[in-house]
Amino acid sequence: MSPDPDIKLAEHLFTALRDASTDGKGVTRDAYGQGEQTAHTIISNCAKELGLLVNIDGSGNLYLTLPGKDRSRPMRMTGSHLDSVPVGGNFDGAAGVIAGLAVLAGWRAAGYVPAVDVTVMGIRAEESTWFPYSYLGSKAAFGLVDNTVLDLRRADTGRTLRDHMVDLGLDPGRFGRPALNAEGIDRFIELHIEQGPKLVNAKVPVGIVTGIRGSFRYRDMRWLGKYAHSGAVDRRDRSDAVRAAAVWMAGIDAEWEALDEAGEDLVVTVGKLATNPTEHAFSKVAGELDCCIDVRSISEEVLDRYDQILRAKASTVCQRTATKVEFGQKTGSRPALMHPGLVGLLGAYASTRGINAMDMPSGAGHDAAVFANLGVKTAMIFVRNEHGSHNPDEAMALDDFALAARLLADGLADDR
Amino acid sequence: MSPDPDIKLAEHLFTALRDASTDGKGVTRDAYGQGEQTAHTIISNCAKELGLLVNIDGSGNLYLTLPGKDRSRPMRMTGSHLDSVPVGGNFDGAAGVIAGLAVLAGWRAAGYVPAVDVTVMGIRAEESTWFPYSYLGSKAAFGLVDNTVLDLRRADTGRTLRDHMVDLGLDPGRFGRPALNAEGIDRFIELHIEQGPKLVNAKVPVGIVTGIRGSFRYRDMRWLGKYAHSGAVDRRDRSDAVRAAAVWMAGIDAEWEALDEAGEDLVVTVGKLATNPTEHAFSKVAGELDCCIDVRSISEEVLDRYDQILRAKASTVCQRTATKVEFGQKTGSRPALMHPGLVGLLGAYASTRGINAMDMPSGAGHDAAVFANLGVKTAMIFVRNEHGSHNPDEAMALDDFALAARLLADGLADDR
Repeated sequence: MSPDPDIKLAEHLFTALRDASTDGKGVTRDAYGQGEQTAHTIISNCAKELGLLVNIDGSGNLYLTLPGKDRSRPMRMTGSHLDSVPVGGNFDGAAGVIAGLAVLAGWRAAGYVPAVDVTVMGIRAEESTWFPYSYLGSKAAFGLVDNTVLDLRRADTGRTLRDHMVDLGLDPGRFGRPALNAEGIDRFIELHIEQGPKLVNAKVPVGIVTGIRGSFRYRDMRWLGKYAHSGAVDRRDRSDAVRAAAVWMAGIDAEWEALDEAGEDLVVTVGKLATNPTEHAFSKVAGELDCCIDVRSISEEVLDRYDQILRAKASTVCQRTATKVEFGQKTGSRPALMHPGLVGLLGAYASTRGINAMDMPSGAGHDAAVFANLGVKTAMIFVRNEHGSHNPDEAMALDDFALAARLLADGLADDR
Repeated sequence: MSPDPDIKLAEHLFTALRDASTDGKGVTRDAYGQGEQTAHTIISNCAKELGLLVNIDGSGNLYLTLPGKDRSRPMRMTGSHLDSVPVGGNFDGAAGVIAGLAVLAGWRAAGYVPAVDVTVMGIRAEESTWFPYSYLGSKAAFGLVDNTVLDLRRADTGRTLRDHMVDLGLDPGRFGRPALNAEGIDRFIELHIEQGPKLVNAKVPVGIVTGIRGSFRYRDMRWLGKYAHSGAVDRRDRSDAVRAAAVWMAGIDAEWEALDEAGEDLVVTVGKLATNPTEHAFSKVAGELDCCIDVRSISEEVLDRYDQILRAKASTVCQRTATKVEFGQKTGSRPALMHPGLVGLLGAYASTRGINAMDMPSGAGHDAAVFANLGVKTAMIFVRNEHGSHNPDEAMALDDFALAARLLADGLADDR
């Protein structure tokens, strides 16, 4: 079996990343911004000190490679993303890159040379709260995006991806040039904190992912009514955007409840909602309401069915309330199944090592879905984590991380 | 019968007010701010040119008086407020002050002297979207507010009423000193645009108000859940503030529908709604949602009943969704009945003059409610107005205004 990962190094890197990207309340590593870039620099410098090969592709993704005995054969890959949501936690994404680096550092220190190249990837822009595009960095690495994405605007700055790349000294003209192809990759194993409470509730430190939920989103929905006096206009004469949206949300919530109770895999979230602050008042019927909706499932059929429910309910509500709705652009990602052989292999290693691990689906999306949907043999290892993710309270114990990194090393070293 | 109001002067004043308080899109006459103050100055200057007595009370309300034959007897009053909502229309409030001035100008030009003093009041801060207090100016004129209101903060600036008074050169130490008492007022007739569509729908130019809806408001409601990853946390593990608020709003909407169909007088408005822009994301379950609710009815019993419904539904929803709700402070105003004798008198004059007028309740609150609830003989005259109020599209025809002002003159001149 392969040598142990360097957990001391991992601990040092977690601290360095946190210190460099703190925003006072949590960490903010903005995609294609200074926060993410600082993380790339810290990881890249560490890899250079370890004597790994360091490459950056045209899209700004980072590759840290320990050369194997046979450099001509397809490589084994691991890694994750280095951005975070605004006011997020320190582990979501970064744990997967640091785990890969800890594995290679441990191997290098022990003089262990893998059979083929092993590459840790530091992926750009996975958190699509910045740029409205799922898996921007990993898709760009495979050449799966076209140039129009350079015109996408970052939600907080309103500036384009092109401008943000220039800020970082990256050449937008090279964005999206293929740096990876599926045939050149033997396997991809992504380590990530669990973002839900399943492992915590089950008191199990490590999860082995069987599949990743796909999604669809309407990020810019608008409900349109008519502003009116809140006292002087009776119920039948109103076009109330808030009332319409509320009745719609309650209606689709009841449908979700029914599907959930029927055992279908589905989560539905309206995470942002606002009347227009320049026109609303407590004494005005609202003429506008902006919101977004994020729908995820392991099943494409359920996603399609629920999309039809959203639209049918909206249409009924608009008729009943004399309002209009604009769904706006639909974005999303396909569900992805993990490779059963690789899942089984990781389970077998966990068993051999005496690591308590359980199989589970991933509710959140991950770059691993891009690899899997291209036919790469893909797996994911989850680390138990309290308080969820996308918030400053993420809490992953280093002991749990060490067990997961141990399993990652086994998965990358295995020569079968 | 008394001489005609000076409608040319009214037209001139409407234009002057609009020009002085335009915000590009509508008009903004901010309470105890420059917008309202400019309106007071324009009206006050005009009254001085007409030779009326001009007084300002400790709270900044304006009084324009045409002395009557017997100055010792209780005066007759008219008037309305001179502030507007943000991005509001030009007629809401101002029409009532301008109508009063047009009546006195017409009388003065014709050498007509009323039996007793007739006073037009320019009232401060009726639009409680600025300071969260119903009928601030008129209540202050009657000495009905205590000094704590000086600490109220204006919604847009966050600064106190005290500070805003100082800005205008008004002495906060004199705020709320009684300038009026019910015994000294023979009658109060407020002219106002209708803020709903009833007159437009009925094709009638003038309304005679029978009663004014009271209200209760929770201006600072908060729904509290727990931020979480939108993909990784399943339905049963969520505390979703948006979902809770939506289910609640839909629930109380169904109750409103039932009461409405049962013939109860009630309007319910959630005019402002927002997740926290510094923490929300399309990929996060929302942990916070701020909203407000405004509930109005002509019946205090219905208001009380609906308040209990709001609270009971919220409690059920919180249990079902693992969320919390904070209703915050409750504010509001009592319903007010107009004086049947005065209502009948105005109806009789309309009939005599051949003015097409209809009796109707007022959905919106008005300063007239303060006078009525103190026992002053009170009435209101509505002017037909398209597109509602509290928005830049208010559209009152000057011909309709002239009919209503004519009726106001009759109501103020009548010596019975």
